[in-house]
Amino acid sequence: MQKLGRVEDHGYRCGRNKPIDGRVRMIVPVPLALLGQWPLDKAACAAFWDSKMTIIPLILSGGSGTRLWPLSRESKPKQFLSFDGGPTLLQRTIARATGPNLDPVPIIVGAYGNHDLVRHDLKRMGRRADILLEPCRRNSAPAITVGCLHALSRDPNALVLVLASDHYIDDVGLFQSGLDEATAAAQAGYLITFGIAPREPSTAYGYILAGEAVGHGTVRKITRFVEKPDRSTAERYVDDGYLWNSGNFLFSAAAFLAEIETLAPAIPQAMRKALMPAQAGPSTWLLNAEAFGQSPAISVDVCVMEKTARAAVLPVRYDWSDIGSWPAIWQASVRDGGGNSAIGDGHLEDCRNTFVHSEGRLTVVSGVCDLAVITTPDAVLVSNLKAPDGLKSAFERLIAQGRTEAVRGLAESYPWGGADSLANGPGYCVERLTLSPGAMIRIRRASLMALKGQLLTGSLAFDSGRLADLGSFSIDDHAVHTLNNDGDLDAVFLLIGSGDGRPRDAIEDATIQGCL
Amino acid sequence: MQKLGRVEDHGYRCGRNKPIDGRVRMIVPVPLALLGQWPLDKAACAAFWDSKMTIIPLILSGGSGTRLWPLSRESKPKQFLSFDGGPTLLQRTIARATGPNLDPVPIIVGAYGNHDLVRHDLKRMGRRADILLEPCRRNSAPAITVGCLHALSRDPNALVLVLASDHYIDDVGLFQSGLDEATAAAQAGYLITFGIAPREPSTAYGYILAGEAVGHGTVRKITRFVEKPDRSTAERYVDDGYLWNSGNFLFSAAAFLAEIETLAPAIPQAMRKALMPAQAGPSTWLLNAEAFGQSPAISVDVCVMEKTARAAVLPVRYDWSDIGSWPAIWQASVRDGGGNSAIGDGHLEDCRNTFVHSEGRLTVVSGVCDLAVITTPDAVLVSNLKAPDGLKSAFERLIAQGRTEAVRGLAESYPWGGADSLANGPGYCVERLTLSPGAMIRIRRASLMALKGQLLTGSLAFDSGRLADLGSFSIDDHAVHTLNNDGDLDAVFLLIGSGDGRPRDAIEDATIQGCL
Repeated sequence: MQKLGRVEDHGYRCGRNKPIDGRVRMIVPVPLALLGQWPLDKAACAAFWDSKMTIIPLILSGGSGTRLWPLSRESKPKQFLSFDGGPTLLQRTIARATGPNLDPVPIIVGAYGNHDLVRHDLKRMGRRADILLEPCRRNSAPAITVGCLHALSRDPNALVLVLASDHYIDDVGLFQSGLDEATAAAQAGYLITFGIAPREPSTAYGYILAGEAVGHGTVRKITRFVEKPDRSTAERYVDDGYLWNSGNFLFSAAAFLAEIETLAPAIPQAMRKALMPAQAGPSTWLLNAEAFGQSPAISVDVCVMEKTARAAVLPVRYDWSDIGSWPAIWQASVRDGGGNSAIGDGHLEDCRNTFVHSEGRLTVVSGVCDLAVITTPDAVLVSNLKAPDGLKSAFERLIAQGRTEAVRGLAESYPWGGADSLANGPGYCVERLTLSPGAMIRIRRASLMALKGQLLTGSLAFDSGRLADLGSFSIDDHAVHTLNNDGDLDAVFLLIGSGDGRPRDAIEDATIQGCL
Repeated sequence: MQKLGRVEDHGYRCGRNKPIDGRVRMIVPVPLALLGQWPLDKAACAAFWDSKMTIIPLILSGGSGTRLWPLSRESKPKQFLSFDGGPTLLQRTIARATGPNLDPVPIIVGAYGNHDLVRHDLKRMGRRADILLEPCRRNSAPAITVGCLHALSRDPNALVLVLASDHYIDDVGLFQSGLDEATAAAQAGYLITFGIAPREPSTAYGYILAGEAVGHGTVRKITRFVEKPDRSTAERYVDDGYLWNSGNFLFSAAAFLAEIETLAPAIPQAMRKALMPAQAGPSTWLLNAEAFGQSPAISVDVCVMEKTARAAVLPVRYDWSDIGSWPAIWQASVRDGGGNSAIGDGHLEDCRNTFVHSEGRLTVVSGVCDLAVITTPDAVLVSNLKAPDGLKSAFERLIAQGRTEAVRGLAESYPWGGADSLANGPGYCVERLTLSPGAMIRIRRASLMALKGQLLTGSLAFDSGRLADLGSFSIDDHAVHTLNNDGDLDAVFLLIGSGDGRPRDAIEDATIQGCL
């Protein structure tokens, strides 16, 4: 019989004890509906604890992905990009984790600054998710821990399918049948990683040596876990039948929490506190910055998988890539007979093995081979696909030079919509802003000499008046003005400033209906 | 003794007879000051005919230069570009044709549509020129003929130095000393081309075989003139001491006119008529479209140089290029030890023999060799410098697809200033216009649903009012409004249209102080 402690003792949601290694811990999962009640309704708790096991996708969306500059930027990591004009990598990850045995509401753990990008992707898919927002970066172990704590509050028997939001898998059918093979071992308490048969002796991935089978399935215990090797070691690993560690996992939330409670107790301790504050919006939790920041920053591989005795691997047969480089993007792309791939307004003439990705600009590539050509509104990259290493130092030089292009693009997303810079001249700056339906911003003129607005499409309430067609407005000296999109369509307008500074910086704050 | 006919019989300016081959023709040069007088003041004419011989630069600026797309466009041919951030090719040509023995006011023959580009280049140099505007393209023989007719009206003994406006010459000193060597032969009636010692067996140039010397100088008669050869023929020509035909010439205007009068009389006949209309502005003549169009379209090489017995060549020692391709631009550029050249915001990492030209956008090129990377606001080109031939078919495909990027860039010059497109959205278009000092435009709203204006810098008279700071204005239904830049600085403003069409197309006409 389990002992029920006060909910507040462990944070409002905790993992239930799982007698994996014979020890019993004081970890009590509580259903969301009972939060704040005391004493707990034991009958309701019992029904909750005995509920059907579900597999909840836990999608990690906290990466920065600067290796794919200039498409990805710190302000728009690679999971929010599409490399072929179709859905973003995050959307594909959500779609891949959708099926009869999978909970339809994934948990997404991501950076606070990218909240609007996550919402945007979900909205376009017509999907819901529980979103946990990290106030700072702490690597994967804390993110998985907080996701497991949240999963337990939805289902005390939950398995979690931990997926990076920015990986590529070619065959969704094989991926999902792999889940079926791994479920029994995960329910038995094994922490299962998906092991990929190496295509080549890559030095970009960690390797796994599989040992004896777990029960009668194809899951095998892990004999050895190794970090990214050098080339000759990688060649030996490939010869010896090692597998790539994909960094995607299936395990019981409770089993994982029990392990990390033993191996790195500071992490679940910090994460329970980080979950304490009230919900920040519908299906959105902003993790407490102070508590979250107290967690060690460590990867789940180093913290748990390399140490636990419960590590297991399911060898899978699908093609996988973390698409962490332009050669990997090219390899994962649909190519013609000459090995070429052109996304957007890209035109190739007499090329071989060349990847062109053009955002809104005509790009002509002629007579070349083994090249990646990436054009964006503010930056162009031409890189040798056979020698991608120079990119890192080129990028570091841009950072050292303080180039804003290294960090963010011309177009940026905000919780209230988006903004892009149209023109910067001597003494003036013209920006185009999009205010989403339901969003309201407050503007106060500060350093700018003068600030004018010009509606382009949609309609807006400006203070107590209304703007439509090509209506214009002025931001007066030091007064606070409100722009409210109370319609159903995006409202697009120009903000024109004279003097120094970006017009958008005059936005003091924003409120968004039904959101953060 | 020469017979004086009525001026109107031959057009108002004609070439004087030069008894080169024993025949005397009825070609009478008349000074500009005496135009319209009848009977002619014989004393004034005699003084004019005996005036000191000058060398007048005759600069041909009618080329289109699509081979250097996307930097050059039909609306901005290559003579108006700089490939190293310095003066344009036209400006360099004017500067090269400046010296103690050269007339300081060159004659420039160019396309009507590029008039403002010519004026702009002259203005920035603080220079004057006589500008003859061609209403359509008729190749070089008509352009040189009309330039020679005009030269004779300034000096009946004039030599003309015919220069393409878009060629490269490395050593201006050698170029000018070449002129000194050629002057005596030109005065003696020879039509002299400048012959270049081939750097390689190029198939892009015509070849010349020099024969016996003319007098005691280094000028030699031309034995043979050949069009662009194939590679093996070119190799033979190089071995046999042939020279490249640079397409730049020195000759007496009267001697040239006498030759073309014999070889292709339809050309001078059409050109005399084309010069008939009144002057179109200060130092500007708009050639009559009907008369000009009646001329055959033919190059001076085919029409005169390959046929005349007076053809001669001055072998020169400077390096020359018609820079008609990206490899030629790269060869003419200043390169670092690795053979790299970066113009504008271009950053090279671990590259060799690579040319980057970036207009206003960060361009990073990593780990490549033998590449030209050209980025402009609306088009990017990546081309193999060792295999530039694919470019032609790529460009022809763009033309076939009706891509506007093939013809014009986002920013365009107009007699009244310039315009560039900032944003095109569903139902709106934002353009930035620059109105030059002294320019006035009249705007009438046509197809656009609504049209607003927003001043960014400078000041403007709008109808009877005045705009300054971030002043804005509306273009009302079907009324005609005037915008007048009566200040000394450029006035920059936005034109914002809703609906279809470009805002700038609402400009009905323009007047420019002291100009066309």
